Amino acid sequence: MKRIGFLLFAVATLAGIVAYMPHASGQSDGDSSPIYGIKIPAGYRHWELISVAHEAGDFDDLRAMLGNPIAMTAFRNGTLPFPDGTIIARLAWKYVPSAENNKVFGRDQSFIAGPATNVQFMVKDSKKYAATGGWGYAEFIDGKPADEAVHKTCFPCHIPAKDHDYVFTHYAR
Amino acid sequence: MKRIGFLLFAVATLAGIVAYMPHASGQSDGDSSPIYGIKIPAGYRHWELISVAHEAGDFDDLRAMLGNPIAMTAFRNGTLPFPDGTIIARLAWKYVPSAENNKVFGRDQSFIAGPATNVQFMVKDSKKYAATGGWGYAEFIDGKPADEAVHKTCFPCHIPAKDHDYVFTHYAR
Repeated sequence: MKRIGFLLFAVATLAGIVAYMPHASGQSDGDSSPIYGIKIPAGYRHWELISVAHEAGDFDDLRAMLGNPIAMTAFRNGTLPFPDGTIIARLAWKYVPSAENNKVFGRDQSFIAGPATNVQFMVKDSKKYAATGGWGYAEFIDGKPADEAVHKTCFPCHIPAKDHDYVFTHYAR
Repeated sequence: MKRIGFLLFAVATLAGIVAYMPHASGQSDGDSSPIYGIKIPAGYRHWELISVAHEAGDFDDLRAMLGNPIAMTAFRNGTLPFPDGTIIARLAWKYVPSAENNKVFGRDQSFIAGPATNVQFMVKDSKKYAATGGWGYAEFIDGKPADEAVHKTCFPCHIPAKDHDYVFTHYAR
């Protein structure tokens, strides 16, 4: 069983690497993010946890940042800049109250992950994405990439985090 | 490198299994939770994500629930009751505003994981823990188990979730 588990993990990892390899043409197809040509990395939901956050306001979500093995090693060791091959996944779900939990606590205090909103990825490739700090970006809603206008906002928004290699999230110990 | 990674994973997994094995005497030592005799499972911070939550009120935390491989398979397949060997880890961090993120968004909306508060575990062993719904409980603060009074509150608090095998959290897809 353990051997099978490792084999599955190896297959998922390899599939992930293949899935995020940019198209030779640099063009986006229906499955890839505009501008950056990034597909959803296979198996990302199995990656380890970097940290969690709550964005109120218009986002109104609970989010989790997961990292592929290269990302996790870099986060844990404080390696900057992140090495090529790093992928960070940002999952987000609607921020919804839990009636079940609130009944237990006897007060309205519990908020849990509702329906998924979108998934975002940052892929480090210092040569391919040299013009955007070494990072490619991607957002998917229901498995489909968001449009080019959305993807034009990614890098400018991340510039304030330049001192942490354009990554806002820090590892939660 | 991949082989070494698998080996490390295997060692961590085995260490985890050994770490949560109850003492033959049933007594707690300084490293184990009172009543249930559970130690911190080695490698739990590498487990996959079940879901996230925000508890306001007295807790005032952001939390992430992680699961060992048995837990993750059960959550994804909707298996109830959870099989013996399931371990759920509940990590929690102080709910703190992020000045850095708020500057980017131009408003106070961003809350991130601050210092860790405590870590809790649920360990499924339907025979050993038959008197408490098949689950053993453990809370650790800075690596040290909380006291017996704390552990007496675990099972009563989880009874309202009996229909989901005493587990409040659902898998976030």
